[in-house]
Order: sequence, then C-alpha cells, then structure tokens
Amino acid sequence: MLEERENREFFPGHPLHERVTPTADLGRALRGATLVVLVVPSDVFRETLTRMRPLLSPVPLTSATKGIENGSMMLMSEVIRDVLGAEAYARSTYLSGPSFAAEVAREIPTNVVVAGFDPQLCTEVQHRFASDRFRVYASDDPVGVQVGGALKNVIAIAAGACDGLGFGHNTRAALITRGLAEIARLALAKGGNVLTLAGLAGMGDLVLTCTGELSRNRTVGFELGRGKPLAEVLGRLGHVAEGVKTARSTHDLARELRVELPICNEVYHVLYEGKDPLDAVRDVLTRPLKKEWGD
Amino acid sequence: MLEERENREFFPGHPLHERVTPTADLGRALRGATLVVLVVPSDVFRETLTRMRPLLSPVPLTSATKGIENGSMMLMSEVIRDVLGAEAYARSTYLSGPSFAAEVAREIPTNVVVAGFDPQLCTEVQHRFASDRFRVYASDDPVGVQVGGALKNVIAIAAGACDGLGFGHNTRAALITRGLAEIARLALAKGGNVLTLAGLAGMGDLVLTCTGELSRNRTVGFELGRGKPLAEVLGRLGHVAEGVKTARSTHDLARELRVELPICNEVYHVLYEGKDPLDAVRDVLTRPLKKEWGD
Repeated sequence: MLEERENREFFPGHPLHERVTPTADLGRALRGATLVVLVVPSDVFRETLTRMRPLLSPVPLTSATKGIENGSMMLMSEVIRDVLGAEAYARSTYLSGPSFAAEVAREIPTNVVVAGFDPQLCTEVQHRFASDRFRVYASDDPVGVQVGGALKNVIAIAAGACDGLGFGHNTRAALITRGLAEIARLALAKGGNVLTLAGLAGMGDLVLTCTGELSRNRTVGFELGRGKPLAEVLGRLGHVAEGVKTARSTHDLARELRVELPICNEVYHVLYEGKDPLDAVRDVLTRPLKKEWGD
Repeated sequence: MLEERENREFFPGHPLHERVTPTADLGRALRGATLVVLVVPSDVFRETLTRMRPLLSPVPLTSATKGIENGSMMLMSEVIRDVLGAEAYARSTYLSGPSFAAEVAREIPTNVVVAGFDPQLCTEVQHRFASDRFRVYASDDPVGVQVGGALKNVIAIAAGACDGLGFGHNTRAALITRGLAEIARLALAKGGNVLTLAGLAGMGDLVLTCTGELSRNRTVGFELGRGKPLAEVLGRLGHVAEGVKTARSTHDLARELRVELPICNEVYHVLYEGKDPLDAVRDVLTRPLKKEWGD
C-alpha cells in the first residue's frame, strides 16, 4: 500500500489521500497523534489496544470497529475500559451508521453518527470527520450506537439467508423489522437509548446491511440460504465476517441478560450448531406472537 | 374478471380463489356481509363510502386503503367517521404492513398489522385474515398504522428519486431513516404511538416500499430522478400513485399541525411546484442538522 498508494485488495482504483501514510509500525502511527481511529476487526481489538497501551498518549480514541467480543461479551467501549482504563474510556467515541466503505471512497453522500461520553469531545470529533459528503451527527449514546453496529451484522446474515432461500421482499421486510426490535431490546438491557436504534446507527445501518448487495454479512447468509456448506462460505470470504463472530457473543450475552433475541439465536444455531437455515427461518417466522410488541 | 376468473391487469397468472365473486354491484357485494374490506384508491374512498352508506348494515369495516384525503387532510378513519358516523368508526379496523400484493398472491410469507379502536373486534378481524403464510398482528393504534401506510409512499418517491439521481445505498439508507423520523413526528402530532412506526406498519412497510423494485411510488421517484418529465412519468403509470396524492395532503397537514417534514415537503415541491429533483435531494441532505434527534 505504501508503494502503490492504494488499497488494492479492498478499494482498487481509489488512490490514498496524499495525507495518508500507511505503516505497520504502531509507534510511528501513534507518535504525535491528536486523534486515534481504530478500525480493526473486533477479534483483534483487545490485542491492538494492548500493543498500543505503552505507546499511547492521552488523546481521544475513536472506534469504528463493529462487534461484541467473544468470551467476555464486551462492547468495544468496555474493552477500552478494560485495557486502557477509565480515562481513555471517558475520552472514547464511536463512529457508526449506514456507510459502505466503497461508497464513502467514491464520495457518495453518507450520514453517520459519532457517539461519546463527553459531549464536548464528541462535537470535536464530529467536526474532525465531517465534510460536505460525509455528514456526522453527534450522539450521547455510545452503548446504543455500538449495539446497533454490532447486531445489524447478525440480522444481516438472517436477512441474507431469507433471500437465499427464495423468500420475498415481504418476508425480508418483516425480518428486518423484528430484527430492529431485537437490537433495541439488547441496547436497552445494556443501558442504551431505544431512540438511537430508530436512527442512523440502528435502523439506517440495518436497512443498508440487509438490503445492499455490498454487505459481506448478508452474503454469508445468502450463500447459506442457497445451500452452500458453512465451511465453503466462510472459506471463500478469506476472513471471518463480523456477524459470524458477533452471533456467538450475542447469543451468550442474551442468555446472561435474559433478553429474548430469537433471530440472533437462530443465526447462532445455524452457524455453530449446524441447524438447517430453512428450519431456522421457519422457526423465526412461525413463532407464536400475538401482539407486535408483545415480548 | 368474472369470466376470466383472474385479475389480468394486475395479477396475471393468479386465478381468483373459488370463493371470490367479482361484482360491480355494490348492493350485491354488501348483502349479507359480515365483514367489509375496502381497498379502493384514497381519492375515491369517500365517494365509495357514500355510495355504500344506504346499503351497509352495521358490520365491521376494514380499510386497506393507504393515504390522506386531499383537501380535508383526513385519514381514512376520519373519512369513515365523517361519512358513516361514530359507530361505524368505532367498529373500523386498518390493515397495513410490508405486503407487496404480488407476493401475497404467490403466498410468500408476509406479516402485517391490523389496528382498531375496539380490541376484541380487532382480534376477530385478525383471525379472519390470518393464515400460515399471512400473519396478522393486532395493534391498538389505528392512527399510527394509517400514518405509516400513507407517508411511506411519499418517502418512497424521495428514495426513488435518490436512486434515479445516482446516489448510493448509503444516501438512500440515510434518507429512509430520516423519512421514518418524519412519519413518526406526524403520527405523534395526530395522536398516534411512536412505537407503531418502529413496527411492521412503519419501518417494515417503509423499508419494503423504498427498497423493493415492485413499488409504484418508488418508480415515480426513480423516473423523475432520471430526468423524465413529471407528466410523462405519471402518464405511463395509467393511474395516480398514492404517494403523489398523499404528498399534497401531507404538505398541507404538516403546515396545519406545524410539524416539520422536510422530505415530504421536498417531494411536494418536486411534484407540484416543478422543483428539480436534484435540488430537492440536495436541500434535504444538506439541511443543517447537528443532532440526530434535534428537530
């Protein structure tokens, strides 16, 4: 990337901005930094923070990583507190919302949310990221924003499976709607604000990920729905889709917090217990549920 | 249709159920009816009720019509009260949710909502419609359900224009999210429940209508976005899309209730005041809005 001035693997044809300097040297990357943005996969988030810890000055940290850590069932904010302590946690912010990277690279108008614990710092980060084509809204709900970003990938696997199995737009719309209700329930149980989930980081990102062709997580579900074996689907991706990992943490977290997340649980059963996707979709769709907002 | 046992214009290839008898004779249709379902376009809803009035016995009336009446700015429930009186109004129910008719005809799994003022009657109607493939949830919020069903068509015109203009998935997802916030605001102002709009009749139907290829309203917006003149777009449809009519009533209603509906208003400007769709989408997207839930 340093030589080619381009990320050929993920964004071929989009030269890096002249002010971007790729480096594998963490010390060099962090030296003199006034804002650190973390966008590593969730399963190396803790490891990356741990490596950063001795090098990091007390600057704001923005995470754009989406996921819930396996094992600990922690949100990325909780991992930050765990590894870097309360002060770094208080200074941290979370960027999320409907933003396929390939479209951001093409400067397609995109709206996202940055959430933080410190409102003033949040406004500061907001203005650092904001441009004419990339609008950033401030939020005071890091928990809701993170739960929305993490769980939408799990629901997207379900939506993809629904499409892969040949169900219709009606079916998918119902699944997305119920998916948002699950996300809101978990956010609430974690202390988030339900209103956040009706916004860009909830509904907005969910709709994008479940209906856009560009989503990796949706593709995993789609291929499973079409009958491809899990190992083949995951093997072809080259790396694990966030939703696959987060399905496991979500399943565990839902059990611990006693929150009912039927769609997320079915995704878990398909991915980790070999359940047939058709049975899983059927079991979600035929669940006895008399009132829309009953459980 | 009586001879062909098929609705060749809209659902070719789907023979009518043996228990369906098409008729243009209103008296015959209503004789002995125990449930009357109204699915006429919103601009002939009042006229149809007026013709039905002398023939109608006191049976439950279910409306699946989506829209807000031009001029009076009334929801269909308010038109029912206006024409048939308080008793018929109290007995009325409203069916809505993500349900492309072509998919329902193919028995694709579909989830909808029936809302009514009388909970017991609502449950009764729910069971009349429900089947294995067509799940019906009960709601006690006829206002929210109707506002969702009406305004999603207006937002779908905007989403279609956004696509037609060549904006991306990110842009459309942001527009849909803000669209839902507008729908919720108007529902609230009319006395509805915000939670309804997070459900099938709100978010669910909005997502379907804004992302599905089958939506007529989205197509109107798409063609306008691609630069086709309004007259040509509407002429080709053969009949007026609900969103076109509802854009006018919504604009008037928003002004009366002092509710801010920027997307709906831009759709109105494009349809009725000749505004350029690109300027309209730009004006929505570049609106100064610092907090996501600010206005």
